[in-house]
Amino acid sequence: MERVDLILTDIDFVLTMDENFTEYKNTSIAIKDGKIVDIGEDVKNRYFGKTIVCKGKIAIPGLINTHTHAAMTLLRGYGSDNPLKVWLEEYIWPVEGQFVSYEFVKDGTQIAVYEMLRNGVTTFVDMYFYENAVADVLNKLGIRGVLSTGILDFPTPGAKTPDEGIAKTEEFIKEHKGSEYIYPAIGPHAPYTCSPETLKKAMDVAEKYDVLYHIHISETEFEVQTVKEKYGETPVKHLEKIGVLNSRVLAAHMVHPTDEEIELLAKKGVKVAHCPESNLKLASGIAPVPKMIEAGVIVGIGTDGTASNDDLDVIGEISTAAKLHKGYWKDPTVLNAKQALAMATREGAKAVRLENKIGTVEKGKKADIVLIDANQPHLNPLFDPYTQIVYSSKGLDVDTVIINGDIKVLNKEVLVIEKDYVLDIAKKWKEKIEALNKATQR
Amino acid sequence: MERVDLILTDIDFVLTMDENFTEYKNTSIAIKDGKIVDIGEDVKNRYFGKTIVCKGKIAIPGLINTHTHAAMTLLRGYGSDNPLKVWLEEYIWPVEGQFVSYEFVKDGTQIAVYEMLRNGVTTFVDMYFYENAVADVLNKLGIRGVLSTGILDFPTPGAKTPDEGIAKTEEFIKEHKGSEYIYPAIGPHAPYTCSPETLKKAMDVAEKYDVLYHIHISETEFEVQTVKEKYGETPVKHLEKIGVLNSRVLAAHMVHPTDEEIELLAKKGVKVAHCPESNLKLASGIAPVPKMIEAGVIVGIGTDGTASNDDLDVIGEISTAAKLHKGYWKDPTVLNAKQALAMATREGAKAVRLENKIGTVEKGKKADIVLIDANQPHLNPLFDPYTQIVYSSKGLDVDTVIINGDIKVLNKEVLVIEKDYVLDIAKKWKEKIEALNKATQR
Repeated sequence: MERVDLILTDIDFVLTMDENFTEYKNTSIAIKDGKIVDIGEDVKNRYFGKTIVCKGKIAIPGLINTHTHAAMTLLRGYGSDNPLKVWLEEYIWPVEGQFVSYEFVKDGTQIAVYEMLRNGVTTFVDMYFYENAVADVLNKLGIRGVLSTGILDFPTPGAKTPDEGIAKTEEFIKEHKGSEYIYPAIGPHAPYTCSPETLKKAMDVAEKYDVLYHIHISETEFEVQTVKEKYGETPVKHLEKIGVLNSRVLAAHMVHPTDEEIELLAKKGVKVAHCPESNLKLASGIAPVPKMIEAGVIVGIGTDGTASNDDLDVIGEISTAAKLHKGYWKDPTVLNAKQALAMATREGAKAVRLENKIGTVEKGKKADIVLIDANQPHLNPLFDPYTQIVYSSKGLDVDTVIINGDIKVLNKEVLVIEKDYVLDIAKKWKEKIEALNKATQR
Repeated sequence: MERVDLILTDIDFVLTMDENFTEYKNTSIAIKDGKIVDIGEDVKNRYFGKTIVCKGKIAIPGLINTHTHAAMTLLRGYGSDNPLKVWLEEYIWPVEGQFVSYEFVKDGTQIAVYEMLRNGVTTFVDMYFYENAVADVLNKLGIRGVLSTGILDFPTPGAKTPDEGIAKTEEFIKEHKGSEYIYPAIGPHAPYTCSPETLKKAMDVAEKYDVLYHIHISETEFEVQTVKEKYGETPVKHLEKIGVLNSRVLAAHMVHPTDEEIELLAKKGVKVAHCPESNLKLASGIAPVPKMIEAGVIVGIGTDGTASNDDLDVIGEISTAAKLHKGYWKDPTVLNAKQALAMATREGAKAVRLENKIGTVEKGKKADIVLIDANQPHLNPLFDPYTQIVYSSKGLDVDTVIINGDIKVLNKEVLVIEKDYVLDIAKKWKEKIEALNKATQR
């Protein structure tokens, strides 16, 4: 008998989400030093240590949210249902202009992190400002984040110029590179808000430090039109032309690529963060996900920020994706349950270039594991666990969340951050934001 | 002080969902003899009786699911992701052919009812077979159902001929008409599965007994094509031509009406049960809901059966609808949160012609009330309660469900039916269905 740190026993199903979609039934998992050391029926007999009995549960890899703006959770649902211009100019921008700070980002991130943990997210990709605040929260709580500060050609809360933004990102990368929880990245905002020079300088940093290049691409028709007018090319082609289209790129949204651009994405190894609910709610459109996957593009799932979604429920997001594309492309076989769940796990890990560490439940991988409570009427009868997770379960059905071998959520209770503390933060900011709104709207 | 049966006090918000979207803040509701007798801050001082303190909760009318096949919950997710023909011929039909019976329907309905209660549904519109089993379950548990047996031109589990189906429905109507919980209806299946004669005979019964005429219309392009070939008209026009298009008609799906047909629906007072998730998942298409509402058509929301959705979460369904139509019609202002929530409440009540009894929280209405637990990080900050319910909450955030003044769900626990009993039923049928599948698939 070997001592380990944690044993999960009697799990109804383990969906490893490896390339073969290997499944285990009625099995156990042994965890040591933050990693999965063994999976199998006889694990119970070969290891001892702290044990959680997981009868009635389905184990899946920790979910990966490949695109969000966590701190914007302070603006959840704020100004919803307005035309884009009104929403941005009368709601979002005034609040950001007034309030964005280390404190704002730290507070907003804490609410977001509570929700993401509750919904089984163990790694998320962020782009906002004051990412050092995000890093501080994640390091304290032990949650993985791929963190990038938005770099734009106009002044931002953290940088007066894009060069300052890039320089600060370089410092941030040096500080966090090699950390267990923080994977620094560079975040040039988008091809219509960053000049070719900014985009190229950012890519130089991405290559120098071997980090992800996180950027919004082809989110709206407005963007496509703007880039075309400015540079004579659609966004993906424009990026290729200036030499920043490669396998480090994680392209958020990608709603309007041409067929030629889809081929280009596949050829260059560009990854996509598909954000279907945000794209629907903001009326950006419907991304050609089945075409991209067929072309060989790696597609992960993203919730986008709660200001535009308005939740951080990755299971809800893959459920929407799986149904949406069937209906829109008129084929009930596209984006099946396995593919949809892969977007939130294995493919998401590839999208952020962490597939050697996370994204599947396999020996040697980090112990980032989510247990779903399948013992509920709304998930039964249970003929197929993939189908049930994607089409019938909700993020709130997540029972247990383990990151790096540590238990973050147990019996649907978030252990690492107090609910009342989070609610108090939300209340404080609601009052501040509403006071500002009253002051500026008259 | 007047004695009442139940008082809900200190409710953060009451969204009455009346025509003016009247809201109350920090208020109380008094309930007597199954009805709402008073709403207001001073209710606490004027009435006494059993009291529930509702701090942190949002009260809305009980949700109305305007189209489902509850018993098909035994087939939840069964054969998902297959082409329609394979799904029906190799999965759904063999099981139905073998098993549909009073017991099957009673068991399936109990699982469905557990889930609907948990998700805040207080009234649902059903079409299946052995609706007497559904009625028995609902009468026992005190849940409202608008129940119709599917009538088709070929033999069904309950009737060898459509005439037998109609005659049996007539008996069912006589038995239940005037009941508190059961609102009998007639259910000719669809214009492509019922001859004009069947459709007309069914309408005669609907008119004779003043009941709803629940029918699938224009669900798929295949249906539209079939009706066109058979009768020379698209489905809605065909029904008008044969004289069965009127304000008793509740048309489930209505994915493919022409502009002319939309005008016809409005003019004739036909109601629509919009089932966006089923229409997406089965690749039927996307219904022109904003157009229909603009034309003046009453549109409620339906989950369809869990074999094709795969859940009975009405809040999830309006959330999907509100986002889908913004994205598909490229306008972020269509189907706003108030309109979406109205589809599941006030407009749903109109769709089933029960607007004098249910659908709003108003004095004199039946006390069908749902309390949502807003005191959760994923619903905060809370700037607008409608927005938060539609875009951020899930059915699982329902905390309390009251039907006809009786508490059915409290603190997120379903009180009227045991969870383990429901899980046992699901397990029993899973085994039966899988055994049949094994026997027939080889």
